[in-house]
Formats: sequence, structure tokens, C-alpha cells
Amino acid sequence: CEHGARKMEDYGRFLALLASALLVGFVSVILSLVWVFHYREGLSWDGSLAEFNWHPVLIITGFVFIQGIAIIVYRLPWTWKCSKLLMKFIHAGLNTIAMILAIVSMVAVFEFHNAKNIPNMYSLHSWIGLTAVIFYSLQLFLGFAVFLLPFAPVHLRVALMPIHVYSGLTIFATVIATALMGITEKLIFALKSPAYSASPPEATLVNCLGLLLVIFGSLILWMASRPHWKRPPAENAKILRPIGATFEDTEVESTMTNSSNADKSDLRSNTEAARKQNIKFDEAGQRSTM
Amino acid sequence: CEHGARKMEDYGRFLALLASALLVGFVSVILSLVWVFHYREGLSWDGSLAEFNWHPVLIITGFVFIQGIAIIVYRLPWTWKCSKLLMKFIHAGLNTIAMILAIVSMVAVFEFHNAKNIPNMYSLHSWIGLTAVIFYSLQLFLGFAVFLLPFAPVHLRVALMPIHVYSGLTIFATVIATALMGITEKLIFALKSPAYSASPPEATLVNCLGLLLVIFGSLILWMASRPHWKRPPAENAKILRPIGATFEDTEVESTMTNSSNADKSDLRSNTEAARKQNIKFDEAGQRSTM
Repeated sequence: CEHGARKMEDYGRFLALLASALLVGFVSVILSLVWVFHYREGLSWDGSLAEFNWHPVLIITGFVFIQGIAIIVYRLPWTWKCSKLLMKFIHAGLNTIAMILAIVSMVAVFEFHNAKNIPNMYSLHSWIGLTAVIFYSLQLFLGFAVFLLPFAPVHLRVALMPIHVYSGLTIFATVIATALMGITEKLIFALKSPAYSASPPEATLVNCLGLLLVIFGSLILWMASRPHWKRPPAENAKILRPIGATFEDTEVESTMTNSSNADKSDLRSNTEAARKQNIKFDEAGQRSTM
Repeated sequence: CEHGARKMEDYGRFLALLASALLVGFVSVILSLVWVFHYREGLSWDGSLAEFNWHPVLIITGFVFIQGIAIIVYRLPWTWKCSKLLMKFIHAGLNTIAMILAIVSMVAVFEFHNAKNIPNMYSLHSWIGLTAVIFYSLQLFLGFAVFLLPFAPVHLRVALMPIHVYSGLTIFATVIATALMGITEKLIFALKSPAYSASPPEATLVNCLGLLLVIFGSLILWMASRPHWKRPPAENAKILRPIGATFEDTEVESTMTNSSNADKSDLRSNTEAARKQNIKFDEAGQRSTM
């Protein structure tokens, strides 16, 4: 019972962090909209500065917020009763949305630059940003081919999972660093009288937005790197599956025995035992988050 | 024997990554010097731009390169025969040097700003940079009080170690992100004719420097987050120490039995067994790296 109480406390701590991350991410998206609508030219798709403005809005919404949620989606305890395959589709789907928004946001900048005869790809922001998008696309493609499609042998999944997790977190951190460079560039270029150095309200607002992005990233990285918040290893894992039981059998059973909300802490305790039994399989990298 | 070969291969991979990180870090320091001496006003301490130039040089040397080495110092296999206490002093010492260089580099900017009547602390770079220095100093102070001084009870060390590791890596990543913002600011302000957007050689050189900082950070984070490259748990750990054996006894023994270079892979194999035995103690956070 004391064990259960500790579990519930830990569950509460996870929920508090998740709520903070969602709040910080949501406020960041709102601040990016306040920035472009209240202080800048709003949004349109006509080669003007209002087209450029899609860039910060889509990057913060897609490449920061949605990517952050995609990273921790396996950690949500109420998804542990869902099949791993479903969660992989959600993880891949959110990352695909983030990638599309990142690419559209880049097109907005290129079109704006071309319309105004501003050179492309000269800044460190653009170099690192484009590199991040390329690595992100590669990561998504490789993740799909190796972990979602059923063709890759276990030893390949084992070898690539730690690299997948590391690349994912490193790309995410790099995206936030690139957003901070972008904010710096934009404030210097856009604020002329008063200048950035005179700290007009827009500068303060957007600096706060930058701080929120760092806090959002830190919260996601903390949640993603706590081993005790991992999704418990599958009870329907091939190695442990009783002879004759099909994938669907154990899947259904797992869903049924854990369908009520009150079962949350039980779920964790039950799977705690399964996890210990299953540690070799676990280490073998059949898991999609750290 | 196959096991030993695998260990040696793994050891070789660690050395290759370490050599890459040292090379990338070293080239970054050189590029920062080429930047300020070949393209800018050099170094001096007179309120001029040459005083400002200490800022990038000391940040890249101290707050990036030395901090990065401090993070992975426990991972160097040839230090595993040294006492943990000695390694803690080296870890704390390198971080102290990095902190001092970061503070001196900030003083250089404040003095330059004040001499030229440029406002301080208006940019996102300055906000996040100052926050990073404050958190870094707190981290160093807390790390010293809890992990180096002998007063903190084990349960406090246990509770704080994962936070220490997470904060350390997050601050390190934030410092690199801040350096990228600083590079962006400086290139926009300093390059006028030709402008940054015309990609003069200085812009290309310093963009490359920024890329190298990202690569350096990625290498350090990879090395720091591989569990199999951790320093093996102490064989002289209190819990496992034979009754009657003193700290000094086991320390000396450990140093003597592992004094030759040829023993490296044996050392790993021996301690591998000790690690499994010792896993509870290990998890209890008596270790100073992830």
C-alpha cells in the first residue's frame, strides 16, 4: 500500500510536469500569434512580410510544440493500455505533421526572400535550421522503415534504438536553439525605431517567448529521460507470449484488464513485475522511447 | 575472448569519439582566435571592441570546450584506476575554471557596453546567457556541497544525482544555444559592407564555427549518455567493502592491480561483474555521470 502511494505520487508528479509542458507550449504558440498579429503584419501568402510571418508561427506550433508532444507520447500512462503499434502510428503521425509544418514554414521564408531579392541560406540560423530539417526527415524515414514496418530484424532494431532516441532528442534541442537564433535575427532586423537595444514591448514579449521555448524543451527532455516514466514493456512481447496465444489475444486481454481509470496505479504495479522479468527484451531496444 | 574483443572494439569506438570531440573543440577555439585576430580588432582590455572580443574567445574556450571535457571526465577509461575523489576534484576544478572564464567574458561585454553607452541585458542572448551562468554557478555550488563534501547523507545524494546529471547536460546544451545566438548577433552587427547577407569570408568562417559548436555538443552528449561507457562502480564502495578493510586499502589495491595499459580490457571485464553485483548501489546515485 505504501508502494501504491509512492506510485500515485510519482504519477501526480508526471501529470504536473505534463500540464506545465502543455501550458508553456500553448502559451508559446499564443505569443507567436500575438507577435505576428499585434506587432507585425499578420499572416498571408503573397510574398510579403505577412508570408514570412508563417515561419515563426509554424515552427513554434509544429517543429517545437508538436514535436515535443510526439517525443513524450509513449510516456502518457493512459496510453499504456493501447497497443504499441497504435502508439507508434501516433508518434510517427505527429512527427510527420511537424515535418510538413516545418517544410511549409521554410517555403514561406524562401518565397519572401525571393520576392524581396534577399539572399537565401547565408545565416547560421539557416544553415543549422536546414540541417535540422534534413536530419529530422531522415530520422522519420529510418524510424518508419525500421520500427514501424515489420521487416527489420530484431538485432537491427536493437542496434538502432539508442541512436533513434539520441538523434530525436538532439534534433529537438537543435530545433529550439535554431528558433532562438531566428528570434534574435528577426528582432534585430525588424526593430528599427525604437531599436531592439531600446527594449520596446515587442522585444520584451518575444524575449519571453524565447525563454518559454527553452523551458518547454527542458520539460520535455526531463520527461523523456526519466527511466521510471517509460511505457512498461509489452506483456504480449513475442519472447514471453505463451505458446498458442496470438498477438490479438494478448492485445485484447491487456486492453480489457486495464480499461478503468481507477486501475492506473495497479497497471503500473503489475507491469513493474513484467518489466523486471522482461528486462533483457527491454534492453534489446523493442521500446520506442528512452 | 570474443567478449574481450568486443570490449576492445567498444574501447576503440570511445577513443575515436573522444579524439573527434577534442579535435572539433580545439578547432573551434582556433577559429574563434582567427575570427578576432584576422577579421576583428584582436584582444585587449581597454573598453574597445578588442575587449569585447574576449567574450567569444573565453566562452568557446571555457564555457563550451572545458565544460564539455568536464562532463565526460569520468568516462575516460584510464582514469578508472584513480580514486573517485580525485576525479570529483578534477570534474569540479574544470567546471570552476569554466565558470570563472564565463564570468570574465561577461565582464568584458559589460565594460565594452558601458564604455560605448550600449544598453546591457536587452537581448534574448543576454537573458538566456545570464540565466545559464546563474544556473551553472548554482549547479557547481550544490554539486560541491552534496557530492564532494562528505556531509550529505546517501539518500540526499541518491535523490539529487539524476537532477545533477540532467541539469548539467541541459545547461551545457543551453550554453551552446546561447553561443549560436551570440554569433548571430555579432555577425549582423559587425558585418556592414559587405553585409552578413552577402556571405563575406568572415561570415562563412564564423558560420562554420557555429556548426562545429553543435557537432562538439552532440559528441559530448552522446558520450555522456551511453550507459556502457560509465565509470564502473567503486569496488571499495562502503556497502561491498569487506569487514575490516579500510578505504585506503581497497583504494591502493585497486590502483595496483590495474596499473598497466594492457590491463584495460581486463579492467572492464572485472568491473563488469562488480557492476552487476553492485547495481543497487549504482542506482542509488553514488555515481557522478549518467
